[in-house]
Amino acid sequence: MSDHAQATIRQIMDSPSFRRAVDVITAEHDRMVRDIITLTEIESPPFNENVRAKAWLEMARAHGLTDLEMDAEGNITGMRRGAGNGRTVCVAAHLDTVFPGGTDVKVRRKGTKLFAPGIGDDTRSLAVILAWLRALDAAGITTRDDILFVADVGEEGLGDLRGVRHLFQKGQYKDRISAFITVDSPDMDRIVTGAVGSKRYRVTFNGPGGHSYGAFGLVSPMFAMADAVSRLGRVPVPDKPKTTYSASVTGGGTSINAIPNSVWTDFDLRSESPAELDRLEQRFMDIIDASVKAENGLRSTRNGAVTADIVKVGDRPAGATPENHELVRFAQAAIEAHGFETRFEYSSTDANIPMSMGIPAIKIGSGGYGGRQHSLEEWIDVEPDASIRGMAAGLATVLALAGVAE
Amino acid sequence: MSDHAQATIRQIMDSPSFRRAVDVITAEHDRMVRDIITLTEIESPPFNENVRAKAWLEMARAHGLTDLEMDAEGNITGMRRGAGNGRTVCVAAHLDTVFPGGTDVKVRRKGTKLFAPGIGDDTRSLAVILAWLRALDAAGITTRDDILFVADVGEEGLGDLRGVRHLFQKGQYKDRISAFITVDSPDMDRIVTGAVGSKRYRVTFNGPGGHSYGAFGLVSPMFAMADAVSRLGRVPVPDKPKTTYSASVTGGGTSINAIPNSVWTDFDLRSESPAELDRLEQRFMDIIDASVKAENGLRSTRNGAVTADIVKVGDRPAGATPENHELVRFAQAAIEAHGFETRFEYSSTDANIPMSMGIPAIKIGSGGYGGRQHSLEEWIDVEPDASIRGMAAGLATVLALAGVAE
Repeated sequence: MSDHAQATIRQIMDSPSFRRAVDVITAEHDRMVRDIITLTEIESPPFNENVRAKAWLEMARAHGLTDLEMDAEGNITGMRRGAGNGRTVCVAAHLDTVFPGGTDVKVRRKGTKLFAPGIGDDTRSLAVILAWLRALDAAGITTRDDILFVADVGEEGLGDLRGVRHLFQKGQYKDRISAFITVDSPDMDRIVTGAVGSKRYRVTFNGPGGHSYGAFGLVSPMFAMADAVSRLGRVPVPDKPKTTYSASVTGGGTSINAIPNSVWTDFDLRSESPAELDRLEQRFMDIIDASVKAENGLRSTRNGAVTADIVKVGDRPAGATPENHELVRFAQAAIEAHGFETRFEYSSTDANIPMSMGIPAIKIGSGGYGGRQHSLEEWIDVEPDASIRGMAAGLATVLALAGVAE
Repeated sequence: MSDHAQATIRQIMDSPSFRRAVDVITAEHDRMVRDIITLTEIESPPFNENVRAKAWLEMARAHGLTDLEMDAEGNITGMRRGAGNGRTVCVAAHLDTVFPGGTDVKVRRKGTKLFAPGIGDDTRSLAVILAWLRALDAAGITTRDDILFVADVGEEGLGDLRGVRHLFQKGQYKDRISAFITVDSPDMDRIVTGAVGSKRYRVTFNGPGGHSYGAFGLVSPMFAMADAVSRLGRVPVPDKPKTTYSASVTGGGTSINAIPNSVWTDFDLRSESPAELDRLEQRFMDIIDASVKAENGLRSTRNGAVTADIVKVGDRPAGATPENHELVRFAQAAIEAHGFETRFEYSSTDANIPMSMGIPAIKIGSGGYGGRQHSLEEWIDVEPDASIRGMAAGLATVLALAGVAE
């Protein structure tokens, strides 16, 4: 641990203005929880974050940001001006959830635990950023750097990081952001310093179709697909560098009494290591090929053979921020100073994009605890102590990065 | 071949009134083809046959049927009164297709071949029945028996024969129908005298779900389902009695970066033999069980195990009309007298219901040729010679059954 980072964090934490900010966070914790519930109950499926985005924009409006607006991709961006002549750093959380429209997003409360799809990943962070803005305002803190606050779209799934990709590669802030912090999911102990690379495919298996009884014996794309998914499920992958696969979403077929002519599955392949990801991708392609060949060998192709149409639907670059980088050290010092353990992880987050471009970036937690992300049983715990300590640690990290003006 | 059946058919075919009827069918063949196109282009997905049903009812209105109406299940029924004191026989075709709403049902024409989903199975038959009615009217033919003409719903797939089930078991004509002819699909050479039994299941595989990367290693219902489908695809079944299976429609999952918590597949199991069907069903149940157990053994169940929820969605009774029954003999004699070969088959049609109740029933063709049923490439050939000969053969069968009044 660098003495410089620890000293910087200590200095921030000891300052009366930071203490005032934490007092505001503490006093307004219930309000923050209400914001979490409000935002969680506005569904925000992939490619349809618009309603939640506008709600967040309205909630952010009171907080003195300049140029608060929705950009061309659907991100909400707003600048909190620093003392002047500083650089621009960015603090983001994502608007989208993995859950399709129509999912029940009503929050259920059980003591300090709140249950709802998307509540921790990443809705709590959207409310935490608003709480930070209120605390900074109330404590009268001016930073050295400008801070661009962003509620971005398209972090999950087929969104393929489109929001942050736009921010760094196309939007008006392109080439202006010096460092990036994404606040994503509650747990403080996991600091993401590396970008898990991912390749995502939709594979559509096509065949001649036909009557389930009359045409029995013809090849079926369903059997080819099942064979491919089944083979993938038996592929060994290393624990380190962590490498994973998932057959995630499926569909197809027309009627229970018809051999389907088209079925599809979405696949997600990931690795911390570009080399392992390439190896897994090659194995995956070989499996699709082998399963199609096996089906065409097993049943009749007299009305046509089964084929596979492989479309890449996601490609997230790998990358990393060195563990000795100032940004990582600030986060580690701030989080440990607030009583949490820390460990460094690779993951696939909005930070993939800046990491892959060589811009320092990390993911930190939003405070408190949570679990079962991406499942309908997702939950967070808003018990105030760990929730507030986490929010204070995150704010200290942001202030260490952006500097506090004298 | 019974002399009685051949003699009856010969007498009908030699009668001036039948010849007039065939002349009308011939003269109006183009109109019948236009009716096929009109009806085919009104989509008629399972459980949503309403628009086509009403269109057919309007088209039938000119033909002197009494009590022409839609029944509680959605069938269109209309009685053509006989000479009086006769029994009631029923002639039916089905309104529904296997294709879901939104399928392109525009008819493409290539010479005498017409291509469109559902055009042969069973839309042509709906137009043929109208042509028969016009021919009977124009030729002034009165039958001995009353003939109930029916355009019924729910023959395909999950419809599970609901239209004809209602007709025979609940509706106003329950207990009144003495014999049943369903006109289904073009080919004349296939006379269905036996009902293929079927068992249909929707199997939903559930699991804990989770993040595709973070929760990698947890059990996935997708892998269990793929394994089950894959195992089913390798089950040997006898050619005779013909026994078949299909994994037909599938769906599930929420996002490409989530291990799904729920996926499902619809399965169709059939056999000419109740004993073979039971054997296949047991094998199927064993496979589901084995695949669930295998997945729970292969990956972690720490957040919950994979389970399978098996729901029966179709159960069509087997049955048969003896091949020496008068109705079968009439059809065979009429069809052969019109220059077609005949063979007897087992299938799953609207005739399953009366057959299972011991009511004489057969399926005959609507004339002409066709193929690729239940696929998007479905076609019929309306080349007039085979089309008209088929229609005449069918009409002769109906008249032999219902008797011609002196």
